[in-house]
Amino acid sequence: MPAQISGDRLQARLEELSTVGRTPDGGVSRFSYSPEHAAAVRLVARWMREAGAEPAVDAWGNLFALVPGEAGTLPPIASGSHLDTVPNGGIFDGALGVLGAVEAAAALRDAGTRPRHPLLLLGFAEEEGTSYGVGCLGSLGAVGRAPAPEALHDAGGRSAADALRAFDTGLPRRTLPLPMAAYVELHIEQGPTLAARETPLAAVDAIVGISRLTLEFVGEANHAGTTPMDARRDALWGAADLVSAVRSLVRDTGDRAVGTVGRLAVSPGAANVVPGRAELVVELRSSDARLLETLRERVDAEGRACARRYGLGLESRAWRTEAPVPLNRSIHDEIAAAARDLGWPLVTMSSWAGHDAKILGAVVPSGMIFVPSVDGVSHSPRERTAWVDVARGAQVLCRSIERLDRAQTA
Amino acid sequence: MPAQISGDRLQARLEELSTVGRTPDGGVSRFSYSPEHAAAVRLVARWMREAGAEPAVDAWGNLFALVPGEAGTLPPIASGSHLDTVPNGGIFDGALGVLGAVEAAAALRDAGTRPRHPLLLLGFAEEEGTSYGVGCLGSLGAVGRAPAPEALHDAGGRSAADALRAFDTGLPRRTLPLPMAAYVELHIEQGPTLAARETPLAAVDAIVGISRLTLEFVGEANHAGTTPMDARRDALWGAADLVSAVRSLVRDTGDRAVGTVGRLAVSPGAANVVPGRAELVVELRSSDARLLETLRERVDAEGRACARRYGLGLESRAWRTEAPVPLNRSIHDEIAAAARDLGWPLVTMSSWAGHDAKILGAVVPSGMIFVPSVDGVSHSPRERTAWVDVARGAQVLCRSIERLDRAQTA
Repeated sequence: MPAQISGDRLQARLEELSTVGRTPDGGVSRFSYSPEHAAAVRLVARWMREAGAEPAVDAWGNLFALVPGEAGTLPPIASGSHLDTVPNGGIFDGALGVLGAVEAAAALRDAGTRPRHPLLLLGFAEEEGTSYGVGCLGSLGAVGRAPAPEALHDAGGRSAADALRAFDTGLPRRTLPLPMAAYVELHIEQGPTLAARETPLAAVDAIVGISRLTLEFVGEANHAGTTPMDARRDALWGAADLVSAVRSLVRDTGDRAVGTVGRLAVSPGAANVVPGRAELVVELRSSDARLLETLRERVDAEGRACARRYGLGLESRAWRTEAPVPLNRSIHDEIAAAARDLGWPLVTMSSWAGHDAKILGAVVPSGMIFVPSVDGVSHSPRERTAWVDVARGAQVLCRSIERLDRAQTA
Repeated sequence: MPAQISGDRLQARLEELSTVGRTPDGGVSRFSYSPEHAAAVRLVARWMREAGAEPAVDAWGNLFALVPGEAGTLPPIASGSHLDTVPNGGIFDGALGVLGAVEAAAALRDAGTRPRHPLLLLGFAEEEGTSYGVGCLGSLGAVGRAPAPEALHDAGGRSAADALRAFDTGLPRRTLPLPMAAYVELHIEQGPTLAARETPLAAVDAIVGISRLTLEFVGEANHAGTTPMDARRDALWGAADLVSAVRSLVRDTGDRAVGTVGRLAVSPGAANVVPGRAELVVELRSSDARLLETLRERVDAEGRACARRYGLGLESRAWRTEAPVPLNRSIHDEIAAAARDLGWPLVTMSSWAGHDAKILGAVVPSGMIFVPSVDGVSHSPRERTAWVDVARGAQVLCRSIERLDRAQTA
């Protein structure tokens, strides 16, 4: 008989946590190392203690708590997500994974199950990169890959080092334990795929890589009346063609990649002046590293072709790429088996957004569980997941931990 | 024997006038009603007096001076252009037409020719619209079509009325005489057409109409990773297609129209967010009023098609249109005949930029003479016209005035 999570308790805690940093329109603004973040850490630490874990924070403000394991020498099975939010974000993004892990630990305790491995409950800081511009900063710090906190500054010019010194949670500062036997993260999908399929659950096979390129078409600013069409070197002509080309290139991959031009700036930007410059940012995402590379090459070639077509120059920075992170196959299979144990359908999909599991996945066998986002909306006060799906996600997480605890012998 | 202008005198005066408002990189910044503008008026007024004309300024700061005609009752033949410049503009734009008219009057006087009509020498204010945002403000004021000067404010918040009160030229304030028998304006082309044909002269048949439309594609801002390509409503997709459509529509007219998207703004404007809104401005120019209307209809239809293609909304303001102004056919023919008298080739072309002749042309039989712009460059310190072309333009202007003086009996 598997341990049973309490959907009611989980809902009540998610709702209580959502009041910490509540915005007037029902969203949440909980920025890393702010008083709201500290209050959230204190609140979740209390629930961690109730689940039998002893909380602490690490040098990056990550909350963590260890439930002792029966076999004293095994590395912990870790689970969690992040406690920070985007500005005016939703109540599930991050919070669900943290409180889902706490709920799984509580369910195991309620069931009288003492796991063989220690359980490590995690609430990372600064996953969104809202304050310091580095996504997954907390988990990067936990695995020793973050920049120096003295080198990071928020919009007000305050360093992360100063903010961390003032970050008062009342908890001891400790080092987060590594290695871990496994890391499993429950998260909302933040996209429309599961909701459209009416499937309540997914196991994630990989987290997409992201490649970004800033490029600028350089033509000649000129009088929009006296310059004949054939004499123009209109930088926006090249940029507009590239917008279309990116869409076509990516669509040709089926659903194996997405591509976006989210920024485009034209100068001088007057109605009666032919654009002399047009700068844009192309972003590509795919879980397939080779496809991502092929797409980069094609975008480069298309950029050159668009420039040539209109006699434009092209100034291109280097691509900045974060490689895709394949998640651990065995953990994926344990998550799928857990859903099977519970009689719920589950699909396999890639995560099109970054997550702490992307960082942990580079050093720890990692997996993720997705639950649906209503209408695919996230990073918004309108972010919603049905409470029945929330409970199912946490139950599959709990069952996955049970299975991993038996399977893992790291 | 036609009167002979002095190319040397004209060059010297253009160079002297260019020192009034000279910028560090060799351009000219002479803004309406500024001390530089007043100094320019005083300088040109002195040369007007030397040509036998008595200068004054009108209520809009337009400089004008009348050379008496032999037949006391005829309306004047007018010639001139504007004395203001764009920021860091060239030394020919406007100044050539003003000093060309003064030179023509001086040449007639030097030749001992007393014209039948009075000659009205003109130096308009605020043609560029730099200070108050209204192009051809001075000539609009001269024909009674300007907004109230109390309603116009410069970037510093000062009203045109206040600036005009403080505009100290030392000249009497008078009303500019209307009606006129004719208006002829010498101007640089400000485009590459004459320079490319190696033709030194053009007579202008019409001044293009200008239609502008601000429109906004409205999609849905969304996560650039988790939103599948087929679920996107990317506002930039519509805007990019319209940029291409405007180019194609206009090119299909041959050289009978130009079209420009000079402004395009994307929001929210983040690399990792699908654009929810894209606002752009379409500008169309043609000397053919019906073609301009047809193009407006086609751009409207293309805008709707681009929006439909990607499931976008379209918010469109009304077109703002200044109709094309055909110039006077008889005056065009006298200009062509003047060039023939002098043995110089001349072509007929439309003006793709607005000029004071566009305003005067609505109430006075008007014509324009163009001389080449090296590389088509204008509104720049690099604006150049060969001195031989400057002299030819002034000579054709002088000869045109002689011919009109004989022909006109208005």
